[in-house]
Amino acid sequence: MTKDDQMAFETILVEHAAAIEAQLRQILDGRALAGEIARPERLMAAMRHGVLNGGKRLRPFLVMESAALFSADGEAAWRVATALECMHCYSLIHDDLPAMDDDDLRRGQPTVHKAFDEATAILAGDALLTLAFDILADEATVLPPDRKVALMLALSRAAGVGGMVGGQMLDLEAERNRPDEAGIIRLQAMKTGALIRFACEAGAIVAGAPAQDRERLAEFGSAIGLAFQLADDLLDLTANASQMGKATGKDAAAGKATLVALHGATWARSQLQGLVDQAHALLEPYGERAALLKEAAKFVAVRSN
Amino acid sequence: MTKDDQMAFETILVEHAAAIEAQLRQILDGRALAGEIARPERLMAAMRHGVLNGGKRLRPFLVMESAALFSADGEAAWRVATALECMHCYSLIHDDLPAMDDDDLRRGQPTVHKAFDEATAILAGDALLTLAFDILADEATVLPPDRKVALMLALSRAAGVGGMVGGQMLDLEAERNRPDEAGIIRLQAMKTGALIRFACEAGAIVAGAPAQDRERLAEFGSAIGLAFQLADDLLDLTANASQMGKATGKDAAAGKATLVALHGATWARSQLQGLVDQAHALLEPYGERAALLKEAAKFVAVRSN
Repeated sequence: MTKDDQMAFETILVEHAAAIEAQLRQILDGRALAGEIARPERLMAAMRHGVLNGGKRLRPFLVMESAALFSADGEAAWRVATALECMHCYSLIHDDLPAMDDDDLRRGQPTVHKAFDEATAILAGDALLTLAFDILADEATVLPPDRKVALMLALSRAAGVGGMVGGQMLDLEAERNRPDEAGIIRLQAMKTGALIRFACEAGAIVAGAPAQDRERLAEFGSAIGLAFQLADDLLDLTANASQMGKATGKDAAAGKATLVALHGATWARSQLQGLVDQAHALLEPYGERAALLKEAAKFVAVRSN
Repeated sequence: MTKDDQMAFETILVEHAAAIEAQLRQILDGRALAGEIARPERLMAAMRHGVLNGGKRLRPFLVMESAALFSADGEAAWRVATALECMHCYSLIHDDLPAMDDDDLRRGQPTVHKAFDEATAILAGDALLTLAFDILADEATVLPPDRKVALMLALSRAAGVGGMVGGQMLDLEAERNRPDEAGIIRLQAMKTGALIRFACEAGAIVAGAPAQDRERLAEFGSAIGLAFQLADDLLDLTANASQMGKATGKDAAAGKATLVALHGATWARSQLQGLVDQAHALLEPYGERAALLKEAAKFVAVRSN
């Protein structure tokens, strides 16, 4: 990707991020919905702090662009993108807790348990996790019920014990267990890969695309999920804290096993190129319509923060 | 209720509990499902510890009996009951955490963060919350998609920021804020009431019962939810730890505002009788078929642990 292509893509990503932030802000207001009794203000404030923090919104972008491939309803896709971002942000809030990764900073701001307190951070995460399913089930998400059920099943599998949460468990154990290469790959496919895979698959589900398209987009998601984690591990080795907005060099300090630590930076860069090529090949059938998703794959592999 | 009626009801409740425990055990085995990568054994063990602990399974019982009122499919009702119990057990695991109520014992056993560690307890709760929606969305729950969506929406509202989680937030704040009577009632309707209300409403949703029946069962649930909390506050005042299997007298020690503390035990017992009468009146249209639900209302009001 040339510097110009990269800048053009980043401009579009920033525009998307502003749009998703507006959607999130609307959903996280204080108004109790039907079936709710009241929305405690301190809890809502903690949820907003954990969500409305200027993230890149990569996962929502992937939902929107994969949905666009199949001409899915845009409004429904926005709702799914919003639900997914709530799920992602809950996981960051819980991962940052003292009992977990014990991070004080996230995107240059105090983490939720620092800005509020630990109990409030735990509850804000729980509430965001629950809200993700609420958003999908809500009638404001206008989709046939069977597609909603398919989305909720895929999301719960991607986020639960056999996906993201299970991956965080394996990651905590990795400091003691020193997993082998297969173990590291599995851990990463669960911890960060599963939700990125879901993001790409979700667009196909929203559109009611045929099973083979859904599977193709899921595979694309798996490839860029792997690339995302490799790039992250490379960055942890080479970037500094001000670039990342969070502590860096923690992996090496913790003696944490990563593929980059096993095979080195040169190998990692070559792997990244291979994954981008693989991701692009999966998108061939969609021609020019997949141009932004292809840029996204490159962006994930070369991002500098 | 005579001593005999009470013993007969408790026998049935114990039988139901054994059946739900078997269902939960099956769902919490180590086998990864479609869309899952692997189920980390330590996390599964922590989930089992938090769920398979000999609870009374009152909420699943309410789902089963409200479903039976409308001749709902029994298999589907079992699945919904199981999902709800996962949701309830996650909330207990997180409530017990050091940052929250800081309890070492639950039903006479070490709490999950004591038996494992804090990070594992947080993740086990997250995984059980997610699993609740997974169970509902799974094709093994044989229900029309629109009913599944209705169940997931009602459950997410009952459990989220405007329900159970929001209630726990208000409860944590209550030690500082000293809520008035209206505040206490709202807090309790959220913290414990919302999920009991959902349990009763869920049976009607599973059956596809008319909206007025669904609303009637929800109101029944609200009444016994209030009774449940009043009985709990009474018990905290009068029981000892060995009866409860957990620490008691904590409310008074924490200076926590309860309706029993405000109005006294005599008032509370009279309120309980009023709530049972109200709950029974709501079930009148269902005649003899509602006999067990009526017993459940009495049980909730007079339970001694």
